Amino acid sequence: MKGPRVDVALVHAPVVNRKGEVIGSAVTNLDLHDIARACRTFGVHTYWVITPFARQRELSSQILAHWLTGHGSTANPDRGEALALIRIIADLQEAIGAARQKWGRELRVVATCARTRPDTVEYTQLRRQIGAGQPVLLVFGTAWGLAPEVFDMVDTTLPPICGTGTYNHLSVRSAASIVLDRLLGVNE
Amino acid sequence: MKGPRVDVALVHAPVVNRKGEVIGSAVTNLDLHDIARACRTFGVHTYWVITPFARQRELSSQILAHWLTGHGSTANPDRGEALALIRIIADLQEAIGAARQKWGRELRVVATCARTRPDTVEYTQLRRQIGAGQPVLLVFGTAWGLAPEVFDMVDTTLPPICGTGTYNHLSVRSAASIVLDRLLGVNE
Repeated sequence: MKGPRVDVALVHAPVVNRKGEVIGSAVTNLDLHDIARACRTFGVHTYWVITPFARQRELSSQILAHWLTGHGSTANPDRGEALALIRIIADLQEAIGAARQKWGRELRVVATCARTRPDTVEYTQLRRQIGAGQPVLLVFGTAWGLAPEVFDMVDTTLPPICGTGTYNHLSVRSAASIVLDRLLGVNE
Repeated sequence: MKGPRVDVALVHAPVVNRKGEVIGSAVTNLDLHDIARACRTFGVHTYWVITPFARQRELSSQILAHWLTGHGSTANPDRGEALALIRIIADLQEAIGAARQKWGRELRVVATCARTRPDTVEYTQLRRQIGAGQPVLLVFGTAWGLAPEVFDMVDTTLPPICGTGTYNHLSVRSAASIVLDRLLGVNE
């Protein structure tokens, strides 16, 4: 298995809403496309789309089928190449288990958060570790972010993406793209 | 005027389609939201949304009004704070003129492209220049990228965003987020 040993998980439940209540969010078409394209660009192995709702998994599978085997596969094959990285799965624990099966017990599960958490790893440090072969599962939350219980399931958390001020309301599509570039991008 | 002297322009025409033909693309709701949120995060001054089609400008204005003065402004004020950076305008030359009026003749107009162009500036170099006060207008294309004639209107071009391989089909939302982070992000 070539390339960086990095997976991405996009969690639709449990996440929190604006009030901090634990909810499940709906799958967004462009979260599938944009994050899959970024994953494909930066050499991510598997992009786990996590929702406990069977109908949402069914809908997501139908979207993928359009691009992988349907009309989209011939109209825009580049898109299928990215979406082929997606695995739709019911919960994060299952994704962690599958990644661990692939890469062994050394797998590190790394959450992302728009607020600073106590136990964080620096981008440059994690980038070095990935470069040295460390397998990593990066976990992103939809809605207003991952529910507190998710942070109990992970090994560490990346610091929030900082710009010039205190505004930190990036879309999860932007956040995932930036995190992948910071960890895996190769430009000077 | 505080913060970096950086504007972003998103061009809907002239751009090219998959076959390389010069076209005009439709405004996409999430291009407004995601790129405005990234602009707000990284301290961009103005986000120019460029389309020659009057009906598209009207539609874009209606979307903005929802978040700036309508129901969205109270339901999610953070979103309005980002979308307030948007100016909708008919062509790139007008945006360049307005940015030049704001920042003077030293303005540098910098295109982005998924293919390597002859005259490019490195990310680290442009980042240093911006840090030293250089005013910059970053130009992004929708669809399959900026039309050839746009490259005649700019001073230089950033190299394509590179990952692990040759796949370079990031969404413009991802590309803009990554470029802004590379030029203006502050994390280690």
